[in-house]
Amino acid sequence: MKPSAPSEFSLIEFIRSQDQAMPENLLRQIGDDCAVFDPAKMHRMVASTDLLIEDTHFRNRWTTPRWLGRKACAVNASDLAAMGAAPYASLLCLGLPTERTGAYFREFILGFLEENRKYGMTLIGGDLSASLKVTVAVTVLGSIEEGEPIYRSGARAGDLILTIGKLGYSRAGLEHLRKHADLDISSIRSLDELEKVAGCPEAAAWLEAHNLPEAQVTPACWLRRGGLANAMIDISDGLGNDLLHILEESGVSAEIDLARLEAIAGISSVETSRDLSLNGGEDYALLFTASEQQYDRIRSAYPAAWPPFRVLGRITPGRGELYLLESGRKTPYSRKGYDHFE
Amino acid sequence: MKPSAPSEFSLIEFIRSQDQAMPENLLRQIGDDCAVFDPAKMHRMVASTDLLIEDTHFRNRWTTPRWLGRKACAVNASDLAAMGAAPYASLLCLGLPTERTGAYFREFILGFLEENRKYGMTLIGGDLSASLKVTVAVTVLGSIEEGEPIYRSGARAGDLILTIGKLGYSRAGLEHLRKHADLDISSIRSLDELEKVAGCPEAAAWLEAHNLPEAQVTPACWLRRGGLANAMIDISDGLGNDLLHILEESGVSAEIDLARLEAIAGISSVETSRDLSLNGGEDYALLFTASEQQYDRIRSAYPAAWPPFRVLGRITPGRGELYLLESGRKTPYSRKGYDHFE
Repeated sequence: MKPSAPSEFSLIEFIRSQDQAMPENLLRQIGDDCAVFDPAKMHRMVASTDLLIEDTHFRNRWTTPRWLGRKACAVNASDLAAMGAAPYASLLCLGLPTERTGAYFREFILGFLEENRKYGMTLIGGDLSASLKVTVAVTVLGSIEEGEPIYRSGARAGDLILTIGKLGYSRAGLEHLRKHADLDISSIRSLDELEKVAGCPEAAAWLEAHNLPEAQVTPACWLRRGGLANAMIDISDGLGNDLLHILEESGVSAEIDLARLEAIAGISSVETSRDLSLNGGEDYALLFTASEQQYDRIRSAYPAAWPPFRVLGRITPGRGELYLLESGRKTPYSRKGYDHFE
Repeated sequence: MKPSAPSEFSLIEFIRSQDQAMPENLLRQIGDDCAVFDPAKMHRMVASTDLLIEDTHFRNRWTTPRWLGRKACAVNASDLAAMGAAPYASLLCLGLPTERTGAYFREFILGFLEENRKYGMTLIGGDLSASLKVTVAVTVLGSIEEGEPIYRSGARAGDLILTIGKLGYSRAGLEHLRKHADLDISSIRSLDELEKVAGCPEAAAWLEAHNLPEAQVTPACWLRRGGLANAMIDISDGLGNDLLHILEESGVSAEIDLARLEAIAGISSVETSRDLSLNGGEDYALLFTASEQQYDRIRSAYPAAWPPFRVLGRITPGRGELYLLESGRKTPYSRKGYDHFE
């Protein structure tokens, strides 16, 4: 053991010393072999897990440990949002190189817990280990008090296709980092500092979208409770790819009107902006389908303070084909997803 | 992408094509943003997670991918056993070097699912990624139909201290591998072959204990349902260490009679055998405390076909101290735990 390396025990103690919400149905948190809770008021429970590995999913120079902790929570909360489920609890497996068990560890945990609080989740268990690369595996549990989750499989011909949250910004941020590969933002302390390093407010907005994605938990739960969406998914692999998941699971086709995609601020080429919005990935925007009647209700009741929704196209009868409409032309979309083993 | 590397999609398809139990309260398995289940019949739910990283927790040459998959499930099932909870579901995050996405991946998954079936669990979600080192993060969910879990905090002065499962064998296996570091058992296909490679049946038994631990789920659930244990834990960090967890959480002390530890077959030195049993780790045996009355009931009703229980000592009034009794001498035990950041 290096003299400076804190023990696993002291790392766990740091986590336990942080303030956390303690829901009344949570009977045992960190500190026994398992966390224990009472699911009596949960009509449905949902569970999801995500793995983030240094140099596969992120680079340490391109984010801060605080932001990485926040993102590790947000991308999982986004999976709960995709079902319209309320975030309940998280479990965190964290592998760290020994030299990152000091400030890096503490910043990561503070960010992770901060984001848990934001979505109303409590960290209830975890495991820490030495690792060559920073390795983060988060599992989240969500609950639904009554009714059913919104599945990918519920889209019907005639439904409108809607999104909540910005598309393409995250990928624009990633491309900016790739172009300026020597950029080191790992010790930035605020979004103001980010703007200085990024060079312009637009690039700062891309980097923020990439490093600090927002899970659309509140609108998603609102849509589900109101019965306002037939199918839903969160956009992690790009609009095109994730819409294809809905189409395949629902046994329908769809048309997207490219003119309805929001232009990305700071991207002058319309073509590039559309490509990033369609194929970007890591947006963590909400993608859902709604009938005309549901859409009428959304329009009249959707709170103005929330991130705006956009109608991008329509579900059509078919067998999982996606078509792009542009200046009257209709072209088939082909999958451009990211494969983690490529 | 190497021409031979299968896509993430095809790996997921391999998992989905395997036979799995589909409990009636499981509404959605792999294939949406989250798994969905109905917790109506679960009075309590428990959750735990464990991280296994190549070269920190295991070496690929010292096990087979099938056994690693089984162990990744068993060590998590053991955490459920420690609460007396019935295994319900697992989620698997798996990071693999690209060259291990073929036979290695399939063998790992077959082992993981085989062990899930053994404990009555269903794999309900996961994430796959490329990784420099084989990285396994498993989360398990367990359920309790009525009553409460058995916590670490319930031990009372006067309780007997009991174990179910062998102690020290796993560590003896690890030491054997360290001594014969060039041993490569990664392509072994059976326990018979293991005996040939290990050199003698005793060493084969150590290696089996190390690579294929057994979670004591059945006795643990039986003890909980019968109200036959006051405190319980699974021994992952060594008998001494894990007993200290019970003592600290319960606010009591304890005495262990070293003569009551089972001698490890093939270890001629009594001292070495006792040291391995006390400080070995990765035993995944069950450690629990029971009053005299509870013990009487255990003795009269414990099925003979199950792994035998052993009485090792007694809980005493105190503040978390553990004493070892040997030939009339009483010496304090000091923590010798394994720290993953050492």
